[in-house]
Amino acid sequence: MLTAAVCGALFASPNVDAILAAILEVTGDSGCLLIVKNYTGDRLNFGLAAEQARALGKNVELVIVADDIALGQGSHARGIAGTVLVQKIAGHAAEAGASLADVKQAALDAIKATASIGLALTDVNVYDPQHETRLDDHEAELGLGIHGEPGAERIAVEKLDALVARAAETLTKHLTHGKHAIMVNMLGAVPVLEAQAIIDALARTSLAERTAFIIGPAPLMTSLDMYGFSLSAIPAKAAFTEALEAPVEPWAWPGIAPFKDVQTKPTPSLPETFAFKASSNGYVEKFIRQGAKILIDNEKDLNALDALIGDGDAGSTFAEAGRVILKDIDRLPLASPQQLTATIGRLLARNAGGSSGVLLSIMFSTAGQQENWRSGLEAGLQRMHSYGGASPGDRTMLDALFPAIAALQSGGLHEAARAARKGADATRTMHARAGRAAYVPLAQLKDVPDPGAEAIARLLEGLAQP
Amino acid sequence: MLTAAVCGALFASPNVDAILAAILEVTGDSGCLLIVKNYTGDRLNFGLAAEQARALGKNVELVIVADDIALGQGSHARGIAGTVLVQKIAGHAAEAGASLADVKQAALDAIKATASIGLALTDVNVYDPQHETRLDDHEAELGLGIHGEPGAERIAVEKLDALVARAAETLTKHLTHGKHAIMVNMLGAVPVLEAQAIIDALARTSLAERTAFIIGPAPLMTSLDMYGFSLSAIPAKAAFTEALEAPVEPWAWPGIAPFKDVQTKPTPSLPETFAFKASSNGYVEKFIRQGAKILIDNEKDLNALDALIGDGDAGSTFAEAGRVILKDIDRLPLASPQQLTATIGRLLARNAGGSSGVLLSIMFSTAGQQENWRSGLEAGLQRMHSYGGASPGDRTMLDALFPAIAALQSGGLHEAARAARKGADATRTMHARAGRAAYVPLAQLKDVPDPGAEAIARLLEGLAQP
Repeated sequence: MLTAAVCGALFASPNVDAILAAILEVTGDSGCLLIVKNYTGDRLNFGLAAEQARALGKNVELVIVADDIALGQGSHARGIAGTVLVQKIAGHAAEAGASLADVKQAALDAIKATASIGLALTDVNVYDPQHETRLDDHEAELGLGIHGEPGAERIAVEKLDALVARAAETLTKHLTHGKHAIMVNMLGAVPVLEAQAIIDALARTSLAERTAFIIGPAPLMTSLDMYGFSLSAIPAKAAFTEALEAPVEPWAWPGIAPFKDVQTKPTPSLPETFAFKASSNGYVEKFIRQGAKILIDNEKDLNALDALIGDGDAGSTFAEAGRVILKDIDRLPLASPQQLTATIGRLLARNAGGSSGVLLSIMFSTAGQQENWRSGLEAGLQRMHSYGGASPGDRTMLDALFPAIAALQSGGLHEAARAARKGADATRTMHARAGRAAYVPLAQLKDVPDPGAEAIARLLEGLAQP
Repeated sequence: MLTAAVCGALFASPNVDAILAAILEVTGDSGCLLIVKNYTGDRLNFGLAAEQARALGKNVELVIVADDIALGQGSHARGIAGTVLVQKIAGHAAEAGASLADVKQAALDAIKATASIGLALTDVNVYDPQHETRLDDHEAELGLGIHGEPGAERIAVEKLDALVARAAETLTKHLTHGKHAIMVNMLGAVPVLEAQAIIDALARTSLAERTAFIIGPAPLMTSLDMYGFSLSAIPAKAAFTEALEAPVEPWAWPGIAPFKDVQTKPTPSLPETFAFKASSNGYVEKFIRQGAKILIDNEKDLNALDALIGDGDAGSTFAEAGRVILKDIDRLPLASPQQLTATIGRLLARNAGGSSGVLLSIMFSTAGQQENWRSGLEAGLQRMHSYGGASPGDRTMLDALFPAIAALQSGGLHEAARAARKGADATRTMHARAGRAAYVPLAQLKDVPDPGAEAIARLLEGLAQP
């Protein structure tokens, strides 16, 4: 790239002494090439500095970049982002040890071959509180300058595809025949996500079939906070692409990559929800039907409870889980506790809503990996605790599930139901440290049980009834 | 870095099937580590996907990043930009062939050691035309979330130094002892110039002496168009820095560099304006005094002419050149035409204003490099033409200078003056193709000579008088 850059004040050329100082600082016996964008101030100041350096015996050459196809022809065009391509190509020649004459010739070849066009939805804000934009929300500019100069044409804001096509087609008209490397330059305030969307849109324009390589998207020549981009093209011939491919120190240079459409591949096949052969077990089927009915019957009641402290859908989440299981009860492997818990886990993962659905799915999916369903439920509960982040005492359904599943290890359903009820009742006085209720003032929570814990307690109490 | 990334809808966790598909796509015999930021939706969906992948026999581990020091403690903290450090460190371990257990341990070590804090001047605009910012122009947020969550604290907008110090000091309080690597992450819409200014400001905060390495500034974990930054810190111990230093494929990773204050060095000494010993020549001195007087006497007249078509300062620019030369006439090497033109070139470069001053300086500076002052002036004129970009016929002072200096090669002052007058008069009917007059309607230019050409004509006419 460059050995030195000389900065002026905002949007102004650096002064002659600053340029001369930079030349004297970096110029050795091999000489120095100045790469100057085509603005009068820059031409004059860099030109004068070059003359003064020559008078001091320095071997200095100067080239002018005029790549903007929006305004002016040939020597009257402005220099914009294509300058970076010229810098990279000349820099590569210099790094490779070429003579000053050859470095200059490489730069001149690149200059002759480079064309650029910009498009922006805002003009630049030059740190002036009084600054008023010349564009309203429905206007964009094609062919803008990088120092806040008005664009060549004011156009209507359209969808991204249409805007990118507009810029791409304007550029395509100026291309010589054959494939090109296209540099996609961000002008300052374009979010990363949108910069990538510009590349995607480019693939759908007429420029795509002329594009062999892509450079960017990256902020390579910015205009402060301008919300826009520019496209620069240079033929994809070896003299240029080899120079553009060469590794270089500045991180800002994004490299050059073959241009291809986004590659898609089919989603890997996911496990069947019903991966096991359906099997029957009258006791288990009755048990599951009863549990689902309890959850469905309690829907309104639990929603009303949740409305006091949350978004009022806790009852529906549990009822939906019940409905989902009931709907496909004929396909369940009822005779195998392990297959059954795994299948319920998958059913809930794909069909149950809300955090509670996912949490219950985690519990069943984990349980399905264990030999024994009782200890499986306990392992599942631990995972639910670990992924969900809530602990007992945080006012969640864990406050009913933890004691219930502990009771289940040594006792039966009655013991589990009693433990769940005790746990659910205890949530009435707890602070909320997880879920939506954490954002609700304590006074409002007072004496209301957590709807998830209450759902677990009612489920187990119902199942424990003869 | 990562083998796969799974995207959800805007600011939402990806769904379980999408995560499971990604796991199945990339997981080989060595297994898979999921690096998850600490948000309930992500924890649950990645957790469930992990369980389902395990049920399919995949070796899957999961870590939760909770690096945000702004809100919550320990496991309740959010995961923000520090996640990128964890990805780099775990990715390096995986690339180096470590076992899944060791990759997970590397990630856990990094998670434990990483702290981050964000600061933004705007909240994020979520592509909603009805979106109303919660911050006015005088408000910023410290400790913001990356999905538009409100910050931990609303603070007043101050100068950049004060804001960076605020964030840096908040982070410094959370650091363990010793030096750190600091990652400077841009949140989406920060111009490159301002991103660099944040690094400069950082060097003036209490964090600077705790900083051994810097990563960025770069958009590493963005929040759409949020106008702000975050700082992340990790101790500069070898286990981390070696991983952070290792080359990696994604261009977005900016690498890690030793942190040092901006290095300044003195400006190289520029040539003395008066590099030659003063010498005397009565004829030349009289000639120069006379020329300067003509320019000064014509100041108002030429300004009035320029006011018709430009910014009204052409007369002052030429008069100032005259005053600059007169002031130091005693220091001029009057006996050597070559030294004299070179010195006048330097005098004008440093003291004359406007494009005309620079152009005249280019002419004299170039002439000073030639053996013969007549051919020197011609060479200088060519340079003036080449750097300035204007050609004869473009309505500039070149329209007087070109014929005048041509006449000087074969004739004397009288011939030069006549040629300059003819050239200046011809500008009265020319289109303007350079300088400010190029923006003036043709009708307004009609019958007004170019003030620069007129100045040259009057100068030479005055000098040619006995």
